[in-house]
Amino acid sequence: MKSPEKAEGVNRIVKSPEEFTNSSPQSSLLERLKEYSHSDFYPFHMPGHKQADLDFPNPWSVDITEIEGFDNLHHAEGILQDLQREAARLFGAEKSFLLINGSTCGLLAAVSACVKRGGKLLMSRNCHKSVYHGVYLRDITPVYAIPPVTEFGIMGSLPPEAVEEALTKDADIQAVLVVSPTYDGVVSDIEGITEVCHRHGVPLIVDEAHGAHFPFSEQFPASAVKLGADVVVQSLHKTLPAFTQTALLHLCSHRVEEGRLKQFLGIFQSSSPSYLLMASMERCMTLLHQEGPKRFLDFHLLLKDFYKKCQGLSRIRLFSGQGEAHCFDYDYSKILISAASLGLSGQDLYRILLDKYHLQMEMASGHYVLALTSLMDRAEGFHRLAEALFQIEAESALGRPGGITKAMEDADIISSEELYQIPHQTMTITRALELPGKVVPLEASGGATSREFIYLYPPGIPLLAPGEQIEDRLLHTILRIRESGLSLKGLSDMTNTRINIVNS
Amino acid sequence: MKSPEKAEGVNRIVKSPEEFTNSSPQSSLLERLKEYSHSDFYPFHMPGHKQADLDFPNPWSVDITEIEGFDNLHHAEGILQDLQREAARLFGAEKSFLLINGSTCGLLAAVSACVKRGGKLLMSRNCHKSVYHGVYLRDITPVYAIPPVTEFGIMGSLPPEAVEEALTKDADIQAVLVVSPTYDGVVSDIEGITEVCHRHGVPLIVDEAHGAHFPFSEQFPASAVKLGADVVVQSLHKTLPAFTQTALLHLCSHRVEEGRLKQFLGIFQSSSPSYLLMASMERCMTLLHQEGPKRFLDFHLLLKDFYKKCQGLSRIRLFSGQGEAHCFDYDYSKILISAASLGLSGQDLYRILLDKYHLQMEMASGHYVLALTSLMDRAEGFHRLAEALFQIEAESALGRPGGITKAMEDADIISSEELYQIPHQTMTITRALELPGKVVPLEASGGATSREFIYLYPPGIPLLAPGEQIEDRLLHTILRIRESGLSLKGLSDMTNTRINIVNS
Repeated sequence: MKSPEKAEGVNRIVKSPEEFTNSSPQSSLLERLKEYSHSDFYPFHMPGHKQADLDFPNPWSVDITEIEGFDNLHHAEGILQDLQREAARLFGAEKSFLLINGSTCGLLAAVSACVKRGGKLLMSRNCHKSVYHGVYLRDITPVYAIPPVTEFGIMGSLPPEAVEEALTKDADIQAVLVVSPTYDGVVSDIEGITEVCHRHGVPLIVDEAHGAHFPFSEQFPASAVKLGADVVVQSLHKTLPAFTQTALLHLCSHRVEEGRLKQFLGIFQSSSPSYLLMASMERCMTLLHQEGPKRFLDFHLLLKDFYKKCQGLSRIRLFSGQGEAHCFDYDYSKILISAASLGLSGQDLYRILLDKYHLQMEMASGHYVLALTSLMDRAEGFHRLAEALFQIEAESALGRPGGITKAMEDADIISSEELYQIPHQTMTITRALELPGKVVPLEASGGATSREFIYLYPPGIPLLAPGEQIEDRLLHTILRIRESGLSLKGLSDMTNTRINIVNS
Repeated sequence: MKSPEKAEGVNRIVKSPEEFTNSSPQSSLLERLKEYSHSDFYPFHMPGHKQADLDFPNPWSVDITEIEGFDNLHHAEGILQDLQREAARLFGAEKSFLLINGSTCGLLAAVSACVKRGGKLLMSRNCHKSVYHGVYLRDITPVYAIPPVTEFGIMGSLPPEAVEEALTKDADIQAVLVVSPTYDGVVSDIEGITEVCHRHGVPLIVDEAHGAHFPFSEQFPASAVKLGADVVVQSLHKTLPAFTQTALLHLCSHRVEEGRLKQFLGIFQSSSPSYLLMASMERCMTLLHQEGPKRFLDFHLLLKDFYKKCQGLSRIRLFSGQGEAHCFDYDYSKILISAASLGLSGQDLYRILLDKYHLQMEMASGHYVLALTSLMDRAEGFHRLAEALFQIEAESALGRPGGITKAMEDADIISSEELYQIPHQTMTITRALELPGKVVPLEASGGATSREFIYLYPPGIPLLAPGEQIEDRLLHTILRIRESGLSLKGLSDMTNTRINIVNS
């Protein structure tokens, strides 16, 4: 393997990754952040502003609090209300709320407002953890819908039929929550799901955290805001140029009581909201308003050119979503790259792209990596990524083993459909966490009720949630995953040897 | 009255307040923020950095997310853990946690971790609303302790005897929460309260949101961190130079389970925490470490000089806390100014200071205003404030009416001890909010159980909470307050004509 300095097409690399990561082990966070921003590492990750130097004042000068003339986020009547109205107009919602505690607080509030304490929520199993947290806080009984796994090995779209079936079976369900697009970019048929929900008289909450850019170009799937969903939560920082931790909650119908939503947003957000974060949301909206069409056009040209160029790859595969079963639609700004045919796991590919090419991916999972792109990406990034992929393929042909590695076998575990069967729910998450627990070796936990989450990260979908029974089948899988060295998360025992169970 | 431009000692005023506030009614939030920062308005309000231009990189360049080498706030093991350890060292705690959703999330987490679902919490009635929210989320039965009102007319210190009495009477109380200092700067005997709590085997949570500067100078009261409290929550932005919405939670004993605290911090904070906010916390700590002693010394000299100079005022009164009954200790960086003897209410004084002298106070209450100062304040600010007070007094002698105005009579309502008697609790806040409600005219609500909060803002202490009975005495007071035009808040009906009650 060539040394980084000499690699073709990546001559921007001026120091080795070891030098970068080890240069200042005692350095401060600020120094490290500055160092990263000055390095040649290209960010194929959040936030969506991609460190572009947008016109913005000195942060200290505009970091104020709710004084005279600057309104109150929790009872917006002036300039913040104007900004929320502008957001609603721009994103096509009836009402929009600025969120300064991320989509996290939006999802907590949406779940809390739509489902009564002790009520039932139909949710896709691949929801963000904040949805599980909402379920916990409100003693909600979750009813799960599991999207099928696509041929590429990622969780696919949730079919409206699955929602129909669950709602028909259980008339006590008070709301439905689905994530679309997923972290991987898979979009569900929100229009179809909306129709089912409304026919059954329940509101639909869509976690569109990864799809805030949808409203701004027809090249992307339509936003749930336009497809009839009742509440839509979008992260502004993930795919648009705003500071991290900013988001919007859109209220799109009268099926959800605005007063209740506001009540819970008032609970889950700081009473000293950051004007820095809010001003960055305005900055983002101004950019969308003034330069959106032009920038999105350029962005699409870059993306199309990139995908087209990559058709020349013979073994590395890019997910396109087209013609794939269980994939209703796809957000192609999320680039999924698999080098499995080269015998490379997602982690392998991630490492090579990072260490040798200084391309920082958003994440590595099983057999693929995820590169997140946005309207702020530059031609340079796409060029470097394409070059790197061609070079990796070429070098592999020159000598790297082509067969299936251990890492690849591990990757197969992750994409297994069996993995995400829902265990029997002995009790609610709330009850399990309130009952006394005891900590036992994982091996000895078969048949018990868990007081912890266990999930593979990524993708971060729970294999087990509190209140669920540790069935033998699942225990076997978990132990196999632990042996494989894949990233098993959630247990408070970081060594993954012991688990907290309900002491019955 | 002289025109602002000609007022002595305020010749920095270059345009009238009307010009400032009306110059751009359609201007954007960012423009307004820039305009305010470039104006001659002096900030006697939060945040504590006072718009000082501290060395800090371009915000876009350091706003990243949890990528390679930058740790994970929710499972800190690297650079963020180092920063948390540095915080613990600097503030004298056993463990510290960075909070990016303000003290709000710290108080929610502390209450949730210390009190079981359905359990009991002893709390001072003047707690921040996030404590009430924690009580609501966890179906907690609150037991209230009411601090006595001082002669100055503000809520005083909570005596340890009150805590002793409550804990002796009710053995089911699982934790105690007090606010010290209050927004007004009144400090309670935390050492005494700690002793009582620990003798009764319950942990003490101290809301020290307004006292993050306490550990850094002996001229301030000691921090609860050093006085034995179990959990202490401090806002960094209120009195120290960090961005708004930043805070710390200090865990100071083993009486509170760390795992539970972390679990709830993981729930109430965004899963995409802002590195901008966290970097500003580091910046603040670096400044405290490197320049703290010098800056605090200068700050104290400015404060002492200011208070000394103001002794020359004959009718305007500054609260000093000294020798005042019901005031155990006082944070003199919070300057309370009463011009009641001139016949000026807090609102009157606030308006004059703002409009004529361009001095923006933190708040106005009853008969006084609050000027918040910090180690970042400049001599100019203190000078302008003192000059303004002397001038106001002098001008008053020349012709302003001296007697009691209507606003002053209203102010008396606020400082009434009777106002904060706890109504009978018919049910928990949680139950009241889950039961069906009906909206009735306020006048017709006597005897019913409220589903809403009602409070005067400021000071923001509830007159009525959900689950409490609207007793005739209280209803009479509320109606009187409404007539007086004082700021009655909390009701979802913004006109304060109707209230949501439990429909029994």
